Amino acid sequence: MITTNISIPTLVLDEEKCRRNIRRMAEKARKHKLKFRPHFKTHQSLEIGRWFKEEGVEAITVSSLLMAEYFAPEWEDITVAFPVNLRETDRLNALAGKIKVNILIESAEAVSLLNEKLTAPVGFFIKIDAGSHRTGLQPDDYTTINEILRLSSTGSLLQFKGFLSHAGHTYHAKSKEEILNIHQQELRQMQTLKEHYVNQWPELLLSVGDTPSCSIADDFSGMDEIRPGNFVFYDVMQWKLKACREEDIAVAVACPVVALHPERNEVVVYGGAVHLSKDRLPQGANGDIYGYVAFPEKNGWGKSIYDVSVVRLSQEHGILSVPDQYFGQIHIGDILYILPVHSCLTADVYNRYTTTNGHGLQKSRSV
Amino acid sequence: MITTNISIPTLVLDEEKCRRNIRRMAEKARKHKLKFRPHFKTHQSLEIGRWFKEEGVEAITVSSLLMAEYFAPEWEDITVAFPVNLRETDRLNALAGKIKVNILIESAEAVSLLNEKLTAPVGFFIKIDAGSHRTGLQPDDYTTINEILRLSSTGSLLQFKGFLSHAGHTYHAKSKEEILNIHQQELRQMQTLKEHYVNQWPELLLSVGDTPSCSIADDFSGMDEIRPGNFVFYDVMQWKLKACREEDIAVAVACPVVALHPERNEVVVYGGAVHLSKDRLPQGANGDIYGYVAFPEKNGWGKSIYDVSVVRLSQEHGILSVPDQYFGQIHIGDILYILPVHSCLTADVYNRYTTTNGHGLQKSRSV
Repeated sequence: MITTNISIPTLVLDEEKCRRNIRRMAEKARKHKLKFRPHFKTHQSLEIGRWFKEEGVEAITVSSLLMAEYFAPEWEDITVAFPVNLRETDRLNALAGKIKVNILIESAEAVSLLNEKLTAPVGFFIKIDAGSHRTGLQPDDYTTINEILRLSSTGSLLQFKGFLSHAGHTYHAKSKEEILNIHQQELRQMQTLKEHYVNQWPELLLSVGDTPSCSIADDFSGMDEIRPGNFVFYDVMQWKLKACREEDIAVAVACPVVALHPERNEVVVYGGAVHLSKDRLPQGANGDIYGYVAFPEKNGWGKSIYDVSVVRLSQEHGILSVPDQYFGQIHIGDILYILPVHSCLTADVYNRYTTTNGHGLQKSRSV
Repeated sequence: MITTNISIPTLVLDEEKCRRNIRRMAEKARKHKLKFRPHFKTHQSLEIGRWFKEEGVEAITVSSLLMAEYFAPEWEDITVAFPVNLRETDRLNALAGKIKVNILIESAEAVSLLNEKLTAPVGFFIKIDAGSHRTGLQPDDYTTINEILRLSSTGSLLQFKGFLSHAGHTYHAKSKEEILNIHQQELRQMQTLKEHYVNQWPELLLSVGDTPSCSIADDFSGMDEIRPGNFVFYDVMQWKLKACREEDIAVAVACPVVALHPERNEVVVYGGAVHLSKDRLPQGANGDIYGYVAFPEKNGWGKSIYDVSVVRLSQEHGILSVPDQYFGQIHIGDILYILPVHSCLTADVYNRYTTTNGHGLQKSRSV
């Protein structure tokens, strides 16, 4: 029983839930005849990567060249789903000399500079803004798209692969219907782009895939590839979006209880902003929460405790709001499990996972 | 010129500003005849620690036993300013066998367990809630204080040192006056405790010291020790609180520009939640910001650009709001410096500092 040995905030992984999440998404991709190119920024672990290989996955997505370098020893086909960073052309060339690398481009300036600097073939997707307005070109910005395609064909190393979008605004949706509407709009925009360019580029690919859409939607008409990442662990945010069930959440942070304040219905754990990240879920009039809370169980953690959540965080302290009826069940020195609001940011903090059956798994970090 | 060599998000430290911040606080402590026991959770670096030794500092504060272990090779007197974690008694015993360690206690249960488990002498402060309601005993909770003192004197290894408080609510103050009011209230509470217990414990110490109070206040009557930490770097939050000037901010994250969206007045940098942390500063009707932005200058970064700030963060992307007039000055591939909202959390992400004159400094992390 892993909990017994825990003395400091520890990122605990339930391997069974995680493998089930991977299997389910791989099956969905097969059913819809989609290439499954999972985003590995969430888990950042070579060992978890091998669980994807067991499901037949051959190509992956990452969000930085550093992450691509980490995975390159075991993966030969990597898309770096981030606007190409022109200060890293040396790193890009070194990597592209070893494995197949795709990058994202959304400006003619980037193409011009890459035409000068590249020393190895690099695939590129044109990044399309699916409506989240984080980055990417507007789907009807044919002027810029045409200029990128024209300039890239003047060099010999940049190879156009297709269009890529990420509907990140599904994370802020209020209902399943809203997620499906965003997804349908994304499909239509991408289909229109393909119709426009397919004669000139018959092999162009359409790549989509945020976790909420890929978990909920059942129509991927015309798409070639999906790239969800968060689904490998899911989290409280995805559960609240109904992109998963609570029992699909595959990571939690085990935290020692260090102080009890029954007079204000609060419990203090060793486990703060540096252990959980400060991503939060608005709870209406009740402010924000930073995680749900569960008691340990034989194989990890149980169902989250009704009405108990992490309400404040400082560097090392987590403050839990706890109704009267649970105070008798919580003691100084106990372990409580925090289900993270956003597992990508929580996992990024750590250098390793501890599985519920007591194994350590190495992982990388973004920084 | 350090900026030239930067290709990925990089935590840059201005050594001159940092040393000036250290010197100024050390002088203030000397002037008020206070022991200066700086909190090292902000910088977490043995090398920066040595700059404090040059100012005569001999004892420090940290927020975990892990951090105490990291500093123990160079520091012989460490207060772990966090409610004692009863699952780490082995680590505590090992450390207390080597150096002088103080811990925080706020319950009789903790004393009972420590009486059983300790194998080396450990000093303890009773943690008093100065009004931030994070943790600690109410200053008039004589029942619990008496019980802690009684129980601790039944063993031979726990040694009462005094009372310790942290007025963390100064971070949310709206004015200098509010900070000074909080500070005065903290002084009065601590003085009352001393009057109550000094006959029985003539050597008891009073320890206070958040960065806003220690930076602004000029009355520390009756206090024995201050423990500020953030002042070593300061940050946007402290600047807005008027606890420092902008030119005292000693760290910034250098981020490559990867995309321009003039149509919506936004610039995208490689530098996201995993590089800055998600601590934020509410800006009224304009939402929250995650940092201010400055152009590179010969010796680091310049003054922050008026009306430019980080308005959204995802894992690796930072989205900057940038008025029209600056678009001509920002290009893809440039470096911009982000002044952090909360330097403690931003610094915690990294394993090293790069100084503005090009040196690398090793550091530890909380996790």
